[in-house]
Amino acid sequence: MRVAVVGATGAVGRRMVSILEERSFPVDELIPLASQRSVDRAVAFHGADVQVRELTHEALDGVDLALASAGAAVSRQFLPSAAAAGAICVDNSSAFRMDPNVALCIPEVNPESLDAHPKIISVPNCTTITAMLPMGPLHRAAGLHALVISSYQSVSGAGWKGVVELEEQIEELHGHEEELGHPVLDTLPVGEVFGKTIAFNVVPKIAAFEDDDYTSEEAKMMAEPRKILGIPDLFVAATAVRVPSLFAHAVSLYAEFSLPITPGEARQVLSSAPGVELRDDPEHGVYPTPMEAGGRDDALVGRIRRAADRDNALLLFSCADNLRKGAALNAIQIAEVVFGARHPIK
Amino acid sequence: MRVAVVGATGAVGRRMVSILEERSFPVDELIPLASQRSVDRAVAFHGADVQVRELTHEALDGVDLALASAGAAVSRQFLPSAAAAGAICVDNSSAFRMDPNVALCIPEVNPESLDAHPKIISVPNCTTITAMLPMGPLHRAAGLHALVISSYQSVSGAGWKGVVELEEQIEELHGHEEELGHPVLDTLPVGEVFGKTIAFNVVPKIAAFEDDDYTSEEAKMMAEPRKILGIPDLFVAATAVRVPSLFAHAVSLYAEFSLPITPGEARQVLSSAPGVELRDDPEHGVYPTPMEAGGRDDALVGRIRRAADRDNALLLFSCADNLRKGAALNAIQIAEVVFGARHPIK
Repeated sequence: MRVAVVGATGAVGRRMVSILEERSFPVDELIPLASQRSVDRAVAFHGADVQVRELTHEALDGVDLALASAGAAVSRQFLPSAAAAGAICVDNSSAFRMDPNVALCIPEVNPESLDAHPKIISVPNCTTITAMLPMGPLHRAAGLHALVISSYQSVSGAGWKGVVELEEQIEELHGHEEELGHPVLDTLPVGEVFGKTIAFNVVPKIAAFEDDDYTSEEAKMMAEPRKILGIPDLFVAATAVRVPSLFAHAVSLYAEFSLPITPGEARQVLSSAPGVELRDDPEHGVYPTPMEAGGRDDALVGRIRRAADRDNALLLFSCADNLRKGAALNAIQIAEVVFGARHPIK
Repeated sequence: MRVAVVGATGAVGRRMVSILEERSFPVDELIPLASQRSVDRAVAFHGADVQVRELTHEALDGVDLALASAGAAVSRQFLPSAAAAGAICVDNSSAFRMDPNVALCIPEVNPESLDAHPKIISVPNCTTITAMLPMGPLHRAAGLHALVISSYQSVSGAGWKGVVELEEQIEELHGHEEELGHPVLDTLPVGEVFGKTIAFNVVPKIAAFEDDDYTSEEAKMMAEPRKILGIPDLFVAATAVRVPSLFAHAVSLYAEFSLPITPGEARQVLSSAPGVELRDDPEHGVYPTPMEAGGRDDALVGRIRRAADRDNALLLFSCADNLRKGAALNAIQIAEVVFGARHPIK
């Protein structure tokens, strides 16, 4: 199979190449594509260095599978023609997610979205995926009707430059921690990626503000669950917050269901849910953190509690590697379903 | 006035001494008290070094005001007798907060709790204060009936040792950031204060788990608002999360009211609310972060949005210095009201 990785030198693209290798995806030819300024680079694949090529329409000629993670504008420019020429296009960007003709798929949650054999398949937003991995099975068990999400999103969600910006600010501020207890507005480092200091801080703004004062990240977190779960009138209220963690997002969830559901029932549902590793044993100090989810395939889910006196409402906390399950891995799992490749979804 | 500071060498105690000075509280004699291992230390106050004394019942004899921040056990041991002897005791611990005979006071929000001239007055939990500064005035405007809180709490909330633990882990992990993208469970630094790695991570557990799988921090965040706002049946669902920030807590709030309220009306209410500085102008990129709240007296509040199609529900984000407004400042503001001292609440 001829497999193109669009955006092969980015944080997600690099994970895509390594996950293709680690899952032994049937790649006959790997075609790493990037913008012109990255064409002097190579990516390691099964022991060989594969030269990066410039992304052009011609470079996508004859590929069987295009895995794209180079932003919405690039996807809009290149994927429709590749799909029309016969390629399966799995897209990590937001370009086509809400298009009614495009599948928005988390293979463990809504594999039926692939039944119509779509040519373009979108990977949901990484924070949406972190929330939907536990909410999908809980919805099937008890009928989700309202969701309040507050996120704790890692710097790598902004790409490798986000990691670098955090590292640089740590260098600048470490050793001066005590001074930060006093007003320091004039001297804080303000980076280009996050707009405010991210080291030793949290930033409740991810991507741009929209007309309704939500950010576009929050808009995705509210719209995508409705499509993934097939609940057009699902109430979702989302607040997206960047935190100085590295490789996994976390979400704090308040969920209301149509039917009563206890924490014990939720644990039972999630203990056998694909893509979820239950880590919820408070008596023995077991609960998830995003750092522990880094580099792992499954979302780590725990802190399941009944919400006060509401027998149909739960609180929970979910963490998932935003570059892997939130992006690269989910894309390749989609391709595995489409091509019937080696790793079927558990 | 003879003013004792119980726990004078701790993170909050140090802030208490400096805030007494900066607000020119009418102190005739400052009596810094601490456990025996700190009695060789001194605290700076109005240009003099005041020797720390060992906390004993005798040391509290004849004080007019005791400001306590040395934990619930210490407060239970020493404050009732001091109060019986005539001292006003303002307590930062959780020891007496839910006692129906004790006032639980944020002076800007429920000053009426002081009307009965209580001898012991509790300062609410720091995260509760961060949430209640905006919710108090919004409740008066529209009648709060449900609240979902997810917190972003700084390491100094665990005292100075929390700051040190974060600094040590930063030293250990900085330079190895990329490795954290791979499973690293066996090599992560696990500190005594936070139980899991806090550097480059978030930890959804603050204090101990209780029988219902909530932490005691979350239990405080759910019980205290009912008492402060005088709404016994207020629904509160809280998730308390430690993040690697330093000197201010943040809360993401979803609030449902009895009456409709628009974001514009909420902004109008909060623009004149005491203890609140509104920072909410998305069009011009204005929103709050906890680092900007560090060292400041007011909570910074912003990100006000209408929750989907519910005209009686809002989302907002509030940040406040957990050592100042979340503890030391709030205690001294209570004392200012009780003693009619110089700084009346705005």
